[in-house]
Amino acid sequence: MGMDYSRVKDWIIREDSFDADHLGKCEAIMSLGNGYMGLRSATEERYLGETRDMLVNGTFNKFDENEVTELPNAADVTAVELRIDGERFALDQGSVSDYGRELNIRTGELTRSAKWTAKNGKSIVFEAKRIVSLARLHDIAARISVTAADDMTLRIRSGISARVTNTGSQHFSEVEKRFYDKKYMQFVEKTTESGVVFVVNSVHKFFLNGEPMELATDVNIEHRIVFADYSVELKAGDSFTIEKISSVNTSRDFDAQGMSVSELQGCSLEALKEAEAMGYQALADESAAAWKEEVWDRAPVVIEGGEDAELDQFAVRFAQYHMRAFVPAHDNRMNIGAKGLSGEGYKGHCFWDTEIFLLPYYIFTAPETARKLEEYRYLSLPGAHRKAAENGYSGAMFPWESAWLDDGETCPLYAGTDIITGLPIKVWSGIIEQHISADVAFGAWQYGVIADDEEFMENCGYELIMDTATFWASRLEKGEDGRYHINDVVGPDEYHEHVNDNAFTNYMARWNMNKAAEYADSLRAEKPELYAKLDAKLDIKTNYGKWTDGRDNMFLPQPAEDNILPMDDRFMDGEFIDLSKYKAQDHVGGIMKDYNLEQIQHIQVCKQADCLVLFYLLEDEFPAEVKKASWDYYVERTLHDSSLSLSTHSVMAADMGDDEMAYDLFKRSCAIDLGPYMGTSDAGIHAASFGGIWQCAVYGFGGLRMLDGRLRIEPRLPEAWDRLSYTVMWKGEKLGVTVAKDGVDVENLTGGKKVSLTVCGKETTI
Amino acid sequence: MGMDYSRVKDWIIREDSFDADHLGKCEAIMSLGNGYMGLRSATEERYLGETRDMLVNGTFNKFDENEVTELPNAADVTAVELRIDGERFALDQGSVSDYGRELNIRTGELTRSAKWTAKNGKSIVFEAKRIVSLARLHDIAARISVTAADDMTLRIRSGISARVTNTGSQHFSEVEKRFYDKKYMQFVEKTTESGVVFVVNSVHKFFLNGEPMELATDVNIEHRIVFADYSVELKAGDSFTIEKISSVNTSRDFDAQGMSVSELQGCSLEALKEAEAMGYQALADESAAAWKEEVWDRAPVVIEGGEDAELDQFAVRFAQYHMRAFVPAHDNRMNIGAKGLSGEGYKGHCFWDTEIFLLPYYIFTAPETARKLEEYRYLSLPGAHRKAAENGYSGAMFPWESAWLDDGETCPLYAGTDIITGLPIKVWSGIIEQHISADVAFGAWQYGVIADDEEFMENCGYELIMDTATFWASRLEKGEDGRYHINDVVGPDEYHEHVNDNAFTNYMARWNMNKAAEYADSLRAEKPELYAKLDAKLDIKTNYGKWTDGRDNMFLPQPAEDNILPMDDRFMDGEFIDLSKYKAQDHVGGIMKDYNLEQIQHIQVCKQADCLVLFYLLEDEFPAEVKKASWDYYVERTLHDSSLSLSTHSVMAADMGDDEMAYDLFKRSCAIDLGPYMGTSDAGIHAASFGGIWQCAVYGFGGLRMLDGRLRIEPRLPEAWDRLSYTVMWKGEKLGVTVAKDGVDVENLTGGKKVSLTVCGKETTI
Repeated sequence: MGMDYSRVKDWIIREDSFDADHLGKCEAIMSLGNGYMGLRSATEERYLGETRDMLVNGTFNKFDENEVTELPNAADVTAVELRIDGERFALDQGSVSDYGRELNIRTGELTRSAKWTAKNGKSIVFEAKRIVSLARLHDIAARISVTAADDMTLRIRSGISARVTNTGSQHFSEVEKRFYDKKYMQFVEKTTESGVVFVVNSVHKFFLNGEPMELATDVNIEHRIVFADYSVELKAGDSFTIEKISSVNTSRDFDAQGMSVSELQGCSLEALKEAEAMGYQALADESAAAWKEEVWDRAPVVIEGGEDAELDQFAVRFAQYHMRAFVPAHDNRMNIGAKGLSGEGYKGHCFWDTEIFLLPYYIFTAPETARKLEEYRYLSLPGAHRKAAENGYSGAMFPWESAWLDDGETCPLYAGTDIITGLPIKVWSGIIEQHISADVAFGAWQYGVIADDEEFMENCGYELIMDTATFWASRLEKGEDGRYHINDVVGPDEYHEHVNDNAFTNYMARWNMNKAAEYADSLRAEKPELYAKLDAKLDIKTNYGKWTDGRDNMFLPQPAEDNILPMDDRFMDGEFIDLSKYKAQDHVGGIMKDYNLEQIQHIQVCKQADCLVLFYLLEDEFPAEVKKASWDYYVERTLHDSSLSLSTHSVMAADMGDDEMAYDLFKRSCAIDLGPYMGTSDAGIHAASFGGIWQCAVYGFGGLRMLDGRLRIEPRLPEAWDRLSYTVMWKGEKLGVTVAKDGVDVENLTGGKKVSLTVCGKETTI
Repeated sequence: MGMDYSRVKDWIIREDSFDADHLGKCEAIMSLGNGYMGLRSATEERYLGETRDMLVNGTFNKFDENEVTELPNAADVTAVELRIDGERFALDQGSVSDYGRELNIRTGELTRSAKWTAKNGKSIVFEAKRIVSLARLHDIAARISVTAADDMTLRIRSGISARVTNTGSQHFSEVEKRFYDKKYMQFVEKTTESGVVFVVNSVHKFFLNGEPMELATDVNIEHRIVFADYSVELKAGDSFTIEKISSVNTSRDFDAQGMSVSELQGCSLEALKEAEAMGYQALADESAAAWKEEVWDRAPVVIEGGEDAELDQFAVRFAQYHMRAFVPAHDNRMNIGAKGLSGEGYKGHCFWDTEIFLLPYYIFTAPETARKLEEYRYLSLPGAHRKAAENGYSGAMFPWESAWLDDGETCPLYAGTDIITGLPIKVWSGIIEQHISADVAFGAWQYGVIADDEEFMENCGYELIMDTATFWASRLEKGEDGRYHINDVVGPDEYHEHVNDNAFTNYMARWNMNKAAEYADSLRAEKPELYAKLDAKLDIKTNYGKWTDGRDNMFLPQPAEDNILPMDDRFMDGEFIDLSKYKAQDHVGGIMKDYNLEQIQHIQVCKQADCLVLFYLLEDEFPAEVKKASWDYYVERTLHDSSLSLSTHSVMAADMGDDEMAYDLFKRSCAIDLGPYMGTSDAGIHAASFGGIWQCAVYGFGGLRMLDGRLRIEPRLPEAWDRLSYTVMWKGEKLGVTVAKDGVDVENLTGGKKVSLTVCGKETTI
């Protein structure tokens, strides 16, 4: 009961029983989106525990000085109330059979159906379908059908409701609400602080037994809501269908720049009428075609094998589905929220998740999208400069949490409850989780190399890498040992705060400064004009010496005789405790119910092991025996309380040759959102883990890696898989990789230019 | 099914079946309050359609420039989630028997009970009690008992939630949220615009089979919420009780003036601990004693007769209950909202309802409270001056809707939907419904005379009357006929806008100017010092001439040969249509679904007949034959679409000698909130109608009236009543009036000084 995986072969994830106590799971994992907006799949009928979100990317608003900016929950068009002879349709009332909810990830269509008998004895077959169009970024289409088993009066209440909030914070002022021609509803609202205008439109079409029909409209305009009441008499056997076509446009849209509100109202209404004329099915077909072209034909990952492989296949595609649903491929002024556009968790902010977990997928499958994500970082440099200056540093200090371009740091100051003091817990990440700046540089470098996009590097990439290097050089602290240290930080393992010489941070900072110096050397020699331009902007002449001094003289944690790399200057002195209780729990963060963060500082426990991420990113900088010893040490101490943790460990396990663990961790990674636990995705899906799932398949089992500018393929198929094939874009060429039990085949599908790479240790050119 | 009147003899109104589709009715009519705050009686368990309001009088906040200021919905302490072996307790789930919800108006205690069997088969007896203390204005106490019929795990989630809004508008910023001693919850929030700080506290006590017990507290602090989870194992037969003691304090409280937020936090927590030590029953007993002393012993109205009289008795006491629950007897900086403190309707604003409908009750039963209500008007004079100045007038032009003292006009600009244009309807009342200024003067005069409170008159009353008279004098427009007119107004009948020479407005304006002139004359002669002081402030020397000129030369609508007083210059030219459809509807405003306001202008239809209110207020200014002819004419054309309408008409019918209609209208007036219709009180009870109900009993049937400074008693008992007795305060003396079928007895219960009055046409002194 609950999640049903019986139709994954048909690209369908199913819910086979309805539980009003656990709505968040399917709302989030079956959410719809097109990168412009995300629509949580809240049901048509309302329930107490629902979270009914429509989030439009990049429209951040700050409720007040005490809250951080967040993606505001826009006026809702999904709720539709049906009454059967007066009784409200709801699955926790009356009796239900033949229930199913399905997301078809191939077409991006959500379907829900049930037979329902009201307490008054009247029965219907209910069916609802919904899409967010991938072909028309502003459009939402829904179709609800009621087939009556008895004679009945069906009453329908449907409209646009701006009575939604973000867990209580209201981000909108009303601007205008009205009907046109007693038919087209329009709600105009404006974010309270950022001043983004939203125009939301809806129109209804009705059909009786397939024939269009008109219904009298009882129009209502109230505080923060416009809606209409309709009523229709049905005879037993009648099938009645409502199509609700809706749209959302905002003043932040590229194509709305400079429009007046009334122009936006007019344009969006005209576009709605066009969609209305097409009707639900044509809109759904058009959108499905876009999914085929943009995702499935373009970046196929095919897994063959037994039953397990079927689910794995689905899990990877499910990851791809969401990675398209939440990525703003249309606009370089926005990025990817930690929960995508599927919930209010993490407030739509982007983190290092983008560069470390998600970017590889986009770089290798949709480089123009990857470029936009890194252009966003470039466009948000002013905030990074401000953050550096505010903290007494130079260069670009990227915010730990990033929202609109000029917002700067948006990490909240408090979250959760300290079980000892009874007070909210202070969040230090926004202040001292500083590795993000190196991660951004790393992402820009990866994109530049893999996509071979010199134009990007010239316009954005070199600057990102050098500007962050300048930050690091200014951040270093000279110790009594004469070396440079980075003290008082939080590493990727957020259970340990205020540590010194966090291995991940130090190594990545050194990588960053080194890369900047390397590029300075090559540009000075090869592109003097560009060098001069960058020098004028970034003062390379002065900073170059700081980068190389930092690189050459900084302290880097070293393994002792046991070959274990110390995560920081303190971890290994902590107490070793039995973590099995927390490892066995079906939810994360259980340790926080027993210890407060102050106590956890002194325990050898990792939310995720940051040394291992380091090995993953800079794999050729560490000897195998250090990686192995550290792996054994940290895995035991890691709770995977971050959704980023499992997939990294899976890829690392594959690298370590521990196939069983690699596959197990991959499975667990897939289960974060797709698994049977009903409470894990309430605040939204785990965007980074989807990138991680693709990495498990393509990096881990598929063995793909870019190492120091070269492509390497060294697969390790799991036992359960017979065959894996995937495509990757490498320097503009599309390569098809097929991995079978007995070998690897790589094909240049584009055939534009020769590509040289290493396959299973052998240099190849294709 | 629904409302149950079987226990009205015991002062109890009951709901005997639960309907999750119609929650508003009992939430509102069974709401609790003490004038400081009102608490809607939302159930412990949550439902989709609930409106969970805690409104603290006078704490107005304006969400943004497009909305009007309103009483903000403060953080909730009433919701408590119970789970029986995991299944959420809710009456629309599982099966229910022996359901009842009762408000005991004598004690102000709300009780609810049911036998409930979860879908998992486990059964409990649930009982909940709740009070808002009349003895401790900041305190709320609740008790929930669960008696287990089976062994079960009971889980409890309870806390303070600030995720509530006013239909989507969030009025609060978070300030602080925390636990003290893992036990006392505190949520501090601040209104976004007016900056009022609220400190809300809660603490829980647990009892198993009557014995106190401790439960482990799982503490949670999230966005806009603090809550705790508790769990207890129950054996079949166990009775488990939760007491939740809560309090709300704000920085606007008189006794919090000048306190810092942390002082307020500390003080309120100390007071909570005191209440916690008392426990539920002692708090409930203390509060019941206050009800007895403040209301039932003080202002008894006793009706004797048959079964009908029992319900009538209850209805009058029910009105008294609410009139105490919503009146800010403790603070002269606030007034009475049109929905009391029982809902968000009319946003907590006060209207002419205070002076015309409610004030008589307070003047005659609790004059010190009446005085505070009129002091409020005095303290809000700056807003009235501003409104006058903004509109190009002099003196005090009172706002049609009034909120905090210096807010000025707070009437919204739009409400409802125009069924023709599809746009919101413009509300003209705030701009041109101007009779309110005369109503305020009338109220001050009534209070001054009846309470014989010369101190009030000297400090506030004369000024209110003269300052409004100055407004009227400046408002008059000289017509071509050489007379003064008041053009372009809305009278009490709001279905007709932009009318000229509205009878109610013109006569009341003249009364106002005349009364100012009279007082100027007497003060000049009798209190020269006060006169000089007022003259310095109000420029009586100049304005006196304007008052008398206005009074003497203004146009007053006159009845034609048919003796019908024209309501305005246009009404009688309108179309006469058949209104029976709308009169038969069980909801008000039905005509607005067929005609828009523009069309209604040309129809002879009244929301309420303002001429009749005029006859009621100035009854000795009109000859009997005019009153009779006008009555017949307007009653036919009146829909009673205002809750103010029925009671006025009942009193008028009694005056006209139409006993049957008087009683029928009284019954209908009582039914507005108390009746069986389940949708009438959703936005809150109808405060003015409660004043009207008391007036029906005491003014209409009891025959009490103050006419030109003299008390008159001329009863007309309805057929169904054998006896009516009531007490009234007259010039400081408490009189007991007993009306029987065979005569009237009036007693001076205080016996302080002799009182002269007219009883059934006979001059009497007692």
